[in-house]
Amino acid sequence: MSTLIGVLGAGQLGRMLALAGLPMGLGFRFYDTSADATAGQLAPLVVGRFDDADALASFARGVDVVTYDWENVPVTSVRVVARHARALPSARALAAAQDRLTEKRLLARVGMRVAPHAAIDSAAQLLAAADQIGLPGILKTRRLGYDGKGQVVIRRTAELVPALASLGGRGLIYEGLVPFEREVSLVAARSRRGETRFYPLTENRHRAGILRESRAPLQSPPLQRAAERQVGRLLEELRYVGVLCVEFFVHDGRLVANEFAPRVHNSGHWTIEGAHTSQFENHLRAILGWPLGETRAVGHALMVNCIGSMPRPELTLTLPGLHHHDYHKAPREGRKVGHLNWVADSPVRRESIARKLADYVES
Amino acid sequence: MSTLIGVLGAGQLGRMLALAGLPMGLGFRFYDTSADATAGQLAPLVVGRFDDADALASFARGVDVVTYDWENVPVTSVRVVARHARALPSARALAAAQDRLTEKRLLARVGMRVAPHAAIDSAAQLLAAADQIGLPGILKTRRLGYDGKGQVVIRRTAELVPALASLGGRGLIYEGLVPFEREVSLVAARSRRGETRFYPLTENRHRAGILRESRAPLQSPPLQRAAERQVGRLLEELRYVGVLCVEFFVHDGRLVANEFAPRVHNSGHWTIEGAHTSQFENHLRAILGWPLGETRAVGHALMVNCIGSMPRPELTLTLPGLHHHDYHKAPREGRKVGHLNWVADSPVRRESIARKLADYVES
Repeated sequence: MSTLIGVLGAGQLGRMLALAGLPMGLGFRFYDTSADATAGQLAPLVVGRFDDADALASFARGVDVVTYDWENVPVTSVRVVARHARALPSARALAAAQDRLTEKRLLARVGMRVAPHAAIDSAAQLLAAADQIGLPGILKTRRLGYDGKGQVVIRRTAELVPALASLGGRGLIYEGLVPFEREVSLVAARSRRGETRFYPLTENRHRAGILRESRAPLQSPPLQRAAERQVGRLLEELRYVGVLCVEFFVHDGRLVANEFAPRVHNSGHWTIEGAHTSQFENHLRAILGWPLGETRAVGHALMVNCIGSMPRPELTLTLPGLHHHDYHKAPREGRKVGHLNWVADSPVRRESIARKLADYVES
Repeated sequence: MSTLIGVLGAGQLGRMLALAGLPMGLGFRFYDTSADATAGQLAPLVVGRFDDADALASFARGVDVVTYDWENVPVTSVRVVARHARALPSARALAAAQDRLTEKRLLARVGMRVAPHAAIDSAAQLLAAADQIGLPGILKTRRLGYDGKGQVVIRRTAELVPALASLGGRGLIYEGLVPFEREVSLVAARSRRGETRFYPLTENRHRAGILRESRAPLQSPPLQRAAERQVGRLLEELRYVGVLCVEFFVHDGRLVANEFAPRVHNSGHWTIEGAHTSQFENHLRAILGWPLGETRAVGHALMVNCIGSMPRPELTLTLPGLHHHDYHKAPREGRKVGHLNWVADSPVRRESIARKLADYVES
């Protein structure tokens, strides 16, 4: 009777997809390697490895559309589920984002500026790259990095070979370090019918490789136009379906693309209360071929990540406009367990709230 | 580890309570007589009759707070669960709302104007009441009426005795029919700590006894002040904890209280996107003793009920600001199966949308 969405991965992104879709009458089914995965509290969860074709097939049968809460779902797993249900975004889009080298080349091909970079599979290649691109730079694994994991900043030549060894010696990429004034991201949606919408640019602040705070809208019409033009080309190039996020550095007032995620993104969590339609709802609308919802901001939004543990709601909710998002995950150092959203009337008011919230989430 | 909320009744109100509480990290457990009850799709559901003390006890054990999605939960059931978990609002508040006679007396006692009325247990009483109060009037069952069920409008003396027979002859109340310009309601919250908040007055339109459309805020400061003063007294009189809704007629510019519901209410569904904090979130905050959230409207909200069946989201969502709420219930004539929410920039714009939505939900 009702439309059933399958989600590979049952973390907080899957959980928030369900929380956006359940009000619209959608049903959900999750797949994860862990029986404790948080989204499994909201809908049936099939537990299995990502190489278990039988479990994947039984998960996908009867599902209308399969999507992902994790960008590193193996492309082979996507191909298995795609025999039983439509899988969106496509395996091609996932594959492009899973390898930092193909990703950089794709971003450059659609006209984005990217940092100088080189594939690294040996010490000789790394020394040559450092010579050509210069120092400082970052050595990263091409696959499976997240939240600053799988990467090392290199400032001196003597650090090159130890860094190489620490990351396994091969399957790496060396990138010139982009000096930047700020980090921003653009969340965009493209539907099965080709309709495209862009959220306002979001400014992001990281610490120790983990996103800590986002603010939106950035309110720079030239950067907004440039980002929409560039991301629009990426969406068309991939014939992308769903929500996607591109992270940029801003250097000398210009955008330098860093990476993209073929999914809803932490830097778009402010849209839950801060935009007319959340990124989660628009992802679902996009993969179902429904009309996309308005992406305008309703005020000046702030999102603060809760890392390691949640502050007590009795405390945070003393701020009467605060929205307390708890992913219902066990506390653990460095783990994203929730976020706090605030929509202010002005950027100035937002900063006064940001100082208060920083106290609550200090870990 | 996390706070567990038990809900007696697992209909759409329970479902929307869960959808408000799950993002805050709350856990839910439902109790209903039907294994198909819609909220059971989101959280564990204990199936049992409301007079099954063992089932009620096993439902309540381990739960932090029990609340209700149905105002006719028997007070005896509440007493059973209250032995294992805090039950809010209190059995006293439920009892007061379950009998139209005690309800009217309570509303009058706290200073509200109410329609003239009389308890009816015989034809002689009804004839005397009709004589004293006059015609037209409404004969209602004192208990278990909803959505216009269990009541008959009487315009002529000859209709009195047949109406009495059709409603069982006893346990009734006769009320003078209040001529009114409009119907409004006030949703209010009072927390365990005594904190109180009021939503803006909502204007409601019924057809065939069922709420069809709500608009908020009403924007009448005198009526808002009067309603808050009166409902504030009711909250204090009952030492009420949770969200409550009082329905009023407006006659000659003055409020006449009709009834109250000791729970979240259909006329407050616009608050999901139309207020800073929804009635569902504030009910949970209230029963947990958490600070209440802002009740201000963010624009000019419209809520349109979907009765019988849902329009297709592919159609409704072509209106880019529309929010499609589907309770995931089987279609059935006269059944509330969902609602559409819209937040407009102005009352004029709201009316142009209202005309469009009326086409979608025509049944």
